[in-house]
Amino acid sequence: MALTDLQDADNLESKLREIAPDSPSAVTLELIKGAAAIPPRPDEDRSLLNLLPGLNADQFQTAQQLRNTLRAQIQECVLAPSQSQDRLKRLRGKMAELQIDGFIVPLNDEFHGEAAPACSERLKWLTGFTGSAGVAAVLKDQAAIFVDGRYTLQVQTEVDTTLFEPRHVSEEPLKEWLKSNMSAGETLAIDPWLHTKSNVDMLQALSTDSELTLLSVEENLIDSIWIDRPSPPLGMVVPQTLPYAGEVSSAKRTRIAATLAERNIDASVHTLPDVIAWLLNIRGTDLPCTPFALGFALLHQDATVDLFVDLRKSSTELVEHLGNSVRLHSREAFGAELDKLAEQNVLIDPSVTSQWILNRLESSGSKVLFGEDPCLLPKATKNEIEIDGTRKAHIRDGAAVSKFLHWLSKNAEKGDLDEMAAESQLRRYRESGENFRDLSFPTISGAGPNGAIVHYRATEKSNRKLTPGNLYLVDSGAQYLDGTTDITRTVAIGTPSEEMRHRFTLVLKGHIALAKAIFPKGTTGTQLDTLARAPLWSEGLDYDHGTGHGVGSYLSVHEGPQRISKAPSSVALVPGMILSNEPGYYKTDAYGIRIENLVTVREIASPEGAERTMYGFETLTFAPIDLSLIDLNMLTDAEKNWLDNYHSEVWEKISPQLDGEVKDWLEEATGAVS
Amino acid sequence: MALTDLQDADNLESKLREIAPDSPSAVTLELIKGAAAIPPRPDEDRSLLNLLPGLNADQFQTAQQLRNTLRAQIQECVLAPSQSQDRLKRLRGKMAELQIDGFIVPLNDEFHGEAAPACSERLKWLTGFTGSAGVAAVLKDQAAIFVDGRYTLQVQTEVDTTLFEPRHVSEEPLKEWLKSNMSAGETLAIDPWLHTKSNVDMLQALSTDSELTLLSVEENLIDSIWIDRPSPPLGMVVPQTLPYAGEVSSAKRTRIAATLAERNIDASVHTLPDVIAWLLNIRGTDLPCTPFALGFALLHQDATVDLFVDLRKSSTELVEHLGNSVRLHSREAFGAELDKLAEQNVLIDPSVTSQWILNRLESSGSKVLFGEDPCLLPKATKNEIEIDGTRKAHIRDGAAVSKFLHWLSKNAEKGDLDEMAAESQLRRYRESGENFRDLSFPTISGAGPNGAIVHYRATEKSNRKLTPGNLYLVDSGAQYLDGTTDITRTVAIGTPSEEMRHRFTLVLKGHIALAKAIFPKGTTGTQLDTLARAPLWSEGLDYDHGTGHGVGSYLSVHEGPQRISKAPSSVALVPGMILSNEPGYYKTDAYGIRIENLVTVREIASPEGAERTMYGFETLTFAPIDLSLIDLNMLTDAEKNWLDNYHSEVWEKISPQLDGEVKDWLEEATGAVS
Repeated sequence: MALTDLQDADNLESKLREIAPDSPSAVTLELIKGAAAIPPRPDEDRSLLNLLPGLNADQFQTAQQLRNTLRAQIQECVLAPSQSQDRLKRLRGKMAELQIDGFIVPLNDEFHGEAAPACSERLKWLTGFTGSAGVAAVLKDQAAIFVDGRYTLQVQTEVDTTLFEPRHVSEEPLKEWLKSNMSAGETLAIDPWLHTKSNVDMLQALSTDSELTLLSVEENLIDSIWIDRPSPPLGMVVPQTLPYAGEVSSAKRTRIAATLAERNIDASVHTLPDVIAWLLNIRGTDLPCTPFALGFALLHQDATVDLFVDLRKSSTELVEHLGNSVRLHSREAFGAELDKLAEQNVLIDPSVTSQWILNRLESSGSKVLFGEDPCLLPKATKNEIEIDGTRKAHIRDGAAVSKFLHWLSKNAEKGDLDEMAAESQLRRYRESGENFRDLSFPTISGAGPNGAIVHYRATEKSNRKLTPGNLYLVDSGAQYLDGTTDITRTVAIGTPSEEMRHRFTLVLKGHIALAKAIFPKGTTGTQLDTLARAPLWSEGLDYDHGTGHGVGSYLSVHEGPQRISKAPSSVALVPGMILSNEPGYYKTDAYGIRIENLVTVREIASPEGAERTMYGFETLTFAPIDLSLIDLNMLTDAEKNWLDNYHSEVWEKISPQLDGEVKDWLEEATGAVS
Repeated sequence: MALTDLQDADNLESKLREIAPDSPSAVTLELIKGAAAIPPRPDEDRSLLNLLPGLNADQFQTAQQLRNTLRAQIQECVLAPSQSQDRLKRLRGKMAELQIDGFIVPLNDEFHGEAAPACSERLKWLTGFTGSAGVAAVLKDQAAIFVDGRYTLQVQTEVDTTLFEPRHVSEEPLKEWLKSNMSAGETLAIDPWLHTKSNVDMLQALSTDSELTLLSVEENLIDSIWIDRPSPPLGMVVPQTLPYAGEVSSAKRTRIAATLAERNIDASVHTLPDVIAWLLNIRGTDLPCTPFALGFALLHQDATVDLFVDLRKSSTELVEHLGNSVRLHSREAFGAELDKLAEQNVLIDPSVTSQWILNRLESSGSKVLFGEDPCLLPKATKNEIEIDGTRKAHIRDGAAVSKFLHWLSKNAEKGDLDEMAAESQLRRYRESGENFRDLSFPTISGAGPNGAIVHYRATEKSNRKLTPGNLYLVDSGAQYLDGTTDITRTVAIGTPSEEMRHRFTLVLKGHIALAKAIFPKGTTGTQLDTLARAPLWSEGLDYDHGTGHGVGSYLSVHEGPQRISKAPSSVALVPGMILSNEPGYYKTDAYGIRIENLVTVREIASPEGAERTMYGFETLTFAPIDLSLIDLNMLTDAEKNWLDNYHSEVWEKISPQLDGEVKDWLEEATGAVS
């Protein structure tokens, strides 16, 4: 079915009748649009079946075709970047109609998570910008888009800068721009669903200083002019069963509710998708790379939960799994349920909760308390079953990566492989593994100078060949039902230069120092970050990203509150947390190096004479580190021992999954250096 | 003159007439009481002369005697701990009279600095507690004293615990105690001079929750019942001249005022004694070990300052030094000058400014802005002249310490030296040095198990002998006109055990790792702290204090915002900051080890190929590190090199100040190990 087929209304109508003869076509269309809004995944047909049960094979095939066509339409037409001028004009028309002088268009949606579904890609729809962080401000005669240092080049190629003036968000912040370009008496409007309290506080202070009126609109101005706006995704919500979750939801709810009771809090509001997934042991398919079901939840002091999701995403299996203590509501019922918290002490996390929710609670007479979401730390502290699942997922993932590295070793030196082909090949190896659900983030497949772009993503335009004498950096991961992986390997294509080997070995020394670290209970990631950088520092080098982020258990590949970075943190690392260990080195326009394994914090059998409870890291990721890039003269004996032990573990865990040529290759790739 | 002589009023009267026949005796007595309140220092007679100019030799001697007698009285009678019961009874009488049900007695004074003069030692006067941090709460029938982990033992010996229930301040906080022990409707009173905003916010929240009335009293209840309360010290205020300060006050005032103008701030309030001393290039003698002149200052956007001090502390020299842009006022004029800031934007640092000041500003209509004192970072970033003065002060100090270490090496093994005798001997070597003004803090002179008490202070009761087979830890420093020193050395008396040598070498490895650190611009002390701990961590050991504190330039030996510690900090280290490098190891009831040098941050000639601006530390402290405590097998070649280079610098800088036996000893003590 081609896109043009859908423009023929009769044709579309007949397809919908074919799929569900007894339902109104409009209802069926909405369901299929909801299915089309689900990012493609191996298990996507389950959601379609859940939405349209009882189809025969022909009907199902038609439904699939229609879904796929609508999905292509979302990407190719709805989010087409070329229409910025017309869209901006329509937005300004709407602003004039409502007597609004300025409107802010953030990138995030109302859940304030890392990604948003197509229906919430308002910034992309308006400006064409595809980065992962940004905000636009539209005034009557001017508009600007604010991005961080990662995107200052990209914004120039994606956005029509005659329409949107590009600005560096920290050097020329939104606040200053609004201050300079709006006049006293003007009205600045926001959608209160898309701004958190701290954000609104900043805008409120600006409005007071500059004598502006800050207005919260009831309907987002973009939504009111976005005629073909995609539907919200209707990904089926499924239980994450006990063999993977390791703790039943009622136990989790009870222990979090107990912490609320201790603090005299009656209820807490949860909007972070991974928190809701963890608390209720559910997973969804609303977003790419992260198994989230978008919705809201209220946890009460009695350990019951009100869950608000589009009910079309539910199933009998889900209702049974949730049980009596979790009341399922439609999204529309959320406001009315918040009103019922009048007179109660209600906890919200001001850094992730929409101002809309705060306004609603305050206007209905709740006493709002601010604090970090109380699920964050328990979620980050995985139980032994989650850790065990993660170990297993990594062993399968390591086999896929090893097969890929072998494939590279055979094919890359010819010089005709490109980044996108390599990325696809790696995906194929992963997809064939047990429990594979999705990638955990878009693969970074960077050859030569593209490897130096920390958040690189290969496109048709940027796609480079892997050629001898260059480095290839591949940072990738997958979502398995039993765990989430994230690994970076840097590979020499042909013979690397002495400088490349020198820099790679410095990065490796940092990686090893962190992997081997022994530290007392109470230590934070800020304290450990230095260990990974010190070898680079001693040569006057460094890297401009954190050393480690938290990783979920079949949840987000980036999670807090644990991290290893220069930024001050008071979060102590505790056993069960999963983090990445990924120091790097980047030479602009030349090459990038990063060595990333995931690790989990464990209490260690203390050294003899130890006086403190000591922790260390267990490495979870198993795939060879390119020996041709290591200058052994730069390693101490202890570092060589670590490398040999690591490689022998790789061999032990991965080789049973391989045979023939690949296995032989792995044996050599994991050979001892000392 | 004995204390009893003063009890004879006629005798006192005749002495006062003898000193100043033409002045009313009451005025003269107040001046001498003000001089008596100055802590003893080599230059203390200058203050007496400034207060009582034109005395002949006999009169001056009488004045000195009277001062010394009154001073002894302050220590022996006024602050006598045995009278707690009576004092507490009188306080409760006063509370009843004013219908107050609870009163809080903090340790700090209205300047919220590290130390307070005798007239402000209200907590000590009431309870007998002599620690450096604590607070008491007195209710109608109960009272409690809250101290931190350092003082839980000490409080038991110093305080009558039948009167004041001792509590651990973080495990059983003041707030919880008040909550449990006060009832709705009761009145809790505070002296708003002694509480900062954050403190009052906490008490206000408690009062709201528990339905208490929070009352700010006009006169401190202790003061109203403390009949023989000492006078505030009248230490002469003297200019810190350009050859030591390195930058004229007008230049400092102009650059700080420019930062106020940038932020649209009309004036800033300064109450930290070291900030005022730095900003105006003045020093005083109101407190022990720190050359402060207690007072308040207002800096205006036009770079002028209003300074509020007791005018009897001034002199013609000071008035000339301050010039026309610094208006000198009495302390009493402070409130009225604050009132003149009505309608202005006024900056206060909420963590160090009394609630009284905030109340006054708000009630007179100022717009109060909260932020860190803008002088802190400029003060911490010493200029080249200050650094050069500090280098010179350390070279003299190193000679004094070396003489002391030699004296120890000759005398300690006999086993009859004690901690207090050693402390006095070290002080004598320092006092004979050029520009010596005072110690920079009370010396920590700890033999054997006393060395394991991090904030130990030898008393008649605790005084231990230095005996063979034990370690002796001495942490001491001095104030010189050109710089402030702070050094810790741990010395083996006789032959140390293998364990002692093992632990000492681990601490040394940490000290060296920090001393040698190379780090990029932007790095904080939190990031570097780990380098000093890692060798101990690898053996399951650690120490429970920070690795480094900021140090002033002939100012406080403890200053912020720079520090090297586990605690999260966002303050980047910048060239010119002075910090201590003092890892340690403590074995309770056995021994303590600490190796402390001061260092200053410098930009370093980058290693070849460096891509970043890199900083490192220049060591300022020069005195031998005990070679008998080092297990050379545990040191890498690079560490041995550092030690040899350090010791050859010690020899080079210190030996020209020594001769004979001491010089020979230094040559051996600084001999190469590799």
